[in-house]
Amino acid sequence: MPSEGDDIVTPWDVKAASDSGVDYAKLIERFGCSKIELTLLERFEKAIGKPLHHLIRRGVFFAHRDLEQILAMYERGEPFYLYTGRGPSSSSLHVGHLIPFILTKWIQDVFNVPLVIQLTDDEKFLWKNIPMNEIIKLARENAKDIIAVGFDPKKTFIFNNLTYVGQCPEFYRTIVSIQRMVTFNQARGIFGFTDNDCIGKIAFPAVQAAPCFSSSFPQIFGRDSVGEINSCEGDRTEKTTVAQTSVGCLIPCAIDQDPYFRMTRDVAPRLGMPKPALLLSTFFPALQGSVTKMSASDPNSAIFLTDTPKQIRAKINKYAFSGGGATIEEHRAKGGNCDVDVSFQYLRFFLDDDEKLERIRKDYTSGELLTGNLKKELIAILTDLVTQHQRRRAQVTEAVLDEFMTPRPLYL
Amino acid sequence: MPSEGDDIVTPWDVKAASDSGVDYAKLIERFGCSKIELTLLERFEKAIGKPLHHLIRRGVFFAHRDLEQILAMYERGEPFYLYTGRGPSSSSLHVGHLIPFILTKWIQDVFNVPLVIQLTDDEKFLWKNIPMNEIIKLARENAKDIIAVGFDPKKTFIFNNLTYVGQCPEFYRTIVSIQRMVTFNQARGIFGFTDNDCIGKIAFPAVQAAPCFSSSFPQIFGRDSVGEINSCEGDRTEKTTVAQTSVGCLIPCAIDQDPYFRMTRDVAPRLGMPKPALLLSTFFPALQGSVTKMSASDPNSAIFLTDTPKQIRAKINKYAFSGGGATIEEHRAKGGNCDVDVSFQYLRFFLDDDEKLERIRKDYTSGELLTGNLKKELIAILTDLVTQHQRRRAQVTEAVLDEFMTPRPLYL
Repeated sequence: MPSEGDDIVTPWDVKAASDSGVDYAKLIERFGCSKIELTLLERFEKAIGKPLHHLIRRGVFFAHRDLEQILAMYERGEPFYLYTGRGPSSSSLHVGHLIPFILTKWIQDVFNVPLVIQLTDDEKFLWKNIPMNEIIKLARENAKDIIAVGFDPKKTFIFNNLTYVGQCPEFYRTIVSIQRMVTFNQARGIFGFTDNDCIGKIAFPAVQAAPCFSSSFPQIFGRDSVGEINSCEGDRTEKTTVAQTSVGCLIPCAIDQDPYFRMTRDVAPRLGMPKPALLLSTFFPALQGSVTKMSASDPNSAIFLTDTPKQIRAKINKYAFSGGGATIEEHRAKGGNCDVDVSFQYLRFFLDDDEKLERIRKDYTSGELLTGNLKKELIAILTDLVTQHQRRRAQVTEAVLDEFMTPRPLYL
Repeated sequence: MPSEGDDIVTPWDVKAASDSGVDYAKLIERFGCSKIELTLLERFEKAIGKPLHHLIRRGVFFAHRDLEQILAMYERGEPFYLYTGRGPSSSSLHVGHLIPFILTKWIQDVFNVPLVIQLTDDEKFLWKNIPMNEIIKLARENAKDIIAVGFDPKKTFIFNNLTYVGQCPEFYRTIVSIQRMVTFNQARGIFGFTDNDCIGKIAFPAVQAAPCFSSSFPQIFGRDSVGEINSCEGDRTEKTTVAQTSVGCLIPCAIDQDPYFRMTRDVAPRLGMPKPALLLSTFFPALQGSVTKMSASDPNSAIFLTDTPKQIRAKINKYAFSGGGATIEEHRAKGGNCDVDVSFQYLRFFLDDDEKLERIRKDYTSGELLTGNLKKELIAILTDLVTQHQRRRAQVTEAVLDEFMTPRPLYL
């Protein structure tokens, strides 16, 4: 539980206590996860034999739990899979929503591993006043945006809880097994539930936890499934001997989701299953600044994946909080502050050219680069990102969606 | 919540405050259900055009909620279905477990209506220290005993939660819809949960509640299912126009299950669904007397459906609490007390010949009939009941079980 003066960081609410944004060092300490140290970055890079993604290099993904164990498994040739998710509360995602998916796709590609993506439509149904049919539709629309990030259809299973719990007996069995091991007291301590919360909210954390153990869901990871795949791929028959209980799970997500997996990691040994590992990111700031994260419920705080180039330009020019001087003269004299400048922050997320980013940082800090020009850089990059996303998303038909959302063997 | 001195009656614990057993009149008042009055019995008998079952005539089923509305639906030719269940905590049922099923079969036969039977293996997994695989096996074994009662395979669907929640998306959706409408405070008020209870227990009441709305599960009662049946049965096409939201649900069960359905009835209007109606029985007393109900966990308190004639005879002779005199002389002089005599109580449940029962009551009360002879009557009846049950159960193969447990359209 946060003390007074602490940042508020829960799966449902993020609010920094000070104008300079969330104190991530403090958060790491409070949550009990670990900072990603330089030695771990080096080991990561060595394991994959190629440069790390800029979101890791730049510390957007800044904290972890047991990441070194996943790397060790990979080094030993042992299987692991990825798990991430999204709560489908709005019909359009914003660019901040892409961050975990962009990194997850990169990890899927470099490690060549399967991925399960949970759409927590049940969570949103419990927390928001949206009819169930509507939220299930939102989940499917969101899934199309996620698919447009470019995941491997052979290795990626996307599911919404309000459908998939009712398609997979092991899912409900795993939920109940977890629910038996967590008392209301413990759930209250982790999530801050009150006596006036509905029993659905109190039960929900086990639903988000369950896919951490999906290596025991025969539909997607079972021995039979592995066997089935093996019969098609003759060179992989040794995989049938892998015990499901030794398959690792790595979860890339924003740090507000950590409480769910802290609970899950506590339960895992008692289920005879490995603890899921975590790769945790900072929040994607709102246009207005780093005190809150970008939120789809405030349209002026967010750049949506459905925005037109004109809307993107207008919103960034009008709303993106500037770290520059109040006047051109002042800016030239004192320079800009990249640490609070939202446009520069966004470039850290989306501009993958390290040299160019460093040049922009220097020029803006010295006052040589004006806010208008910095924003112009960002507008070009986001317009490109969003336009390309829209083009890819237009190709995600209902048939493609159904393919991703059909329970089927994933290759471990 | 019970006050001090009240009987303890919860779904998990029944203990009378006094030696004379549970005070059912007080319980009706505390729970807020209704006594089955003579006028309702007469209306019931008139509606079905035949004598009522002795378990109703004799007040074993003594209380109800909205039973008159189910009769009114039947009189108007509107559809309803039956819902009952069992928590599979022991591999062998005892004769007391048969009572709700015997009456449910009779209701199914006289009204010609479908029946869903829930095996709450998830509940038992949460409350007892039994491995999940074991409890699922117990559920299937218990289902065989239930089938042996004689239910119509065309009209009866038996399911265990740990399997069926994972086979029916509408089931989980209904569970979550209910869970959204019940706060922890309310659940604590109804079920007595504490902060140290696991979140699975707190979530569970919605799982027992959900089949009250199973008329909206397309697999068993949906418009499509009805349509499918109609295509086979030309004379019933009008049924396709029945709105699922107007299908009634009647639950025959022991009164300790009432809290679940009190909660369900509170939620129903907000789901746009009809409140389930209830037909509530007294408890089946332990051999030792009416203070507790027969329990499978105390083998000496129960006659099991697997007992041999020898075991039945021995247990009744040794343990069945007698209301007779301490000596033959005293019994002849003062007579026996049928109200506390367990053998006589059991005859009320299982001897369907009213005249014979009344004769036994008179003769035992006057002292003419000795305890040994009363017990002999009961031993003959229970031996016959159990032997016949065993013969029928031996015919319930895995194939028959699978037939009953396969989700399929039920005829409304």
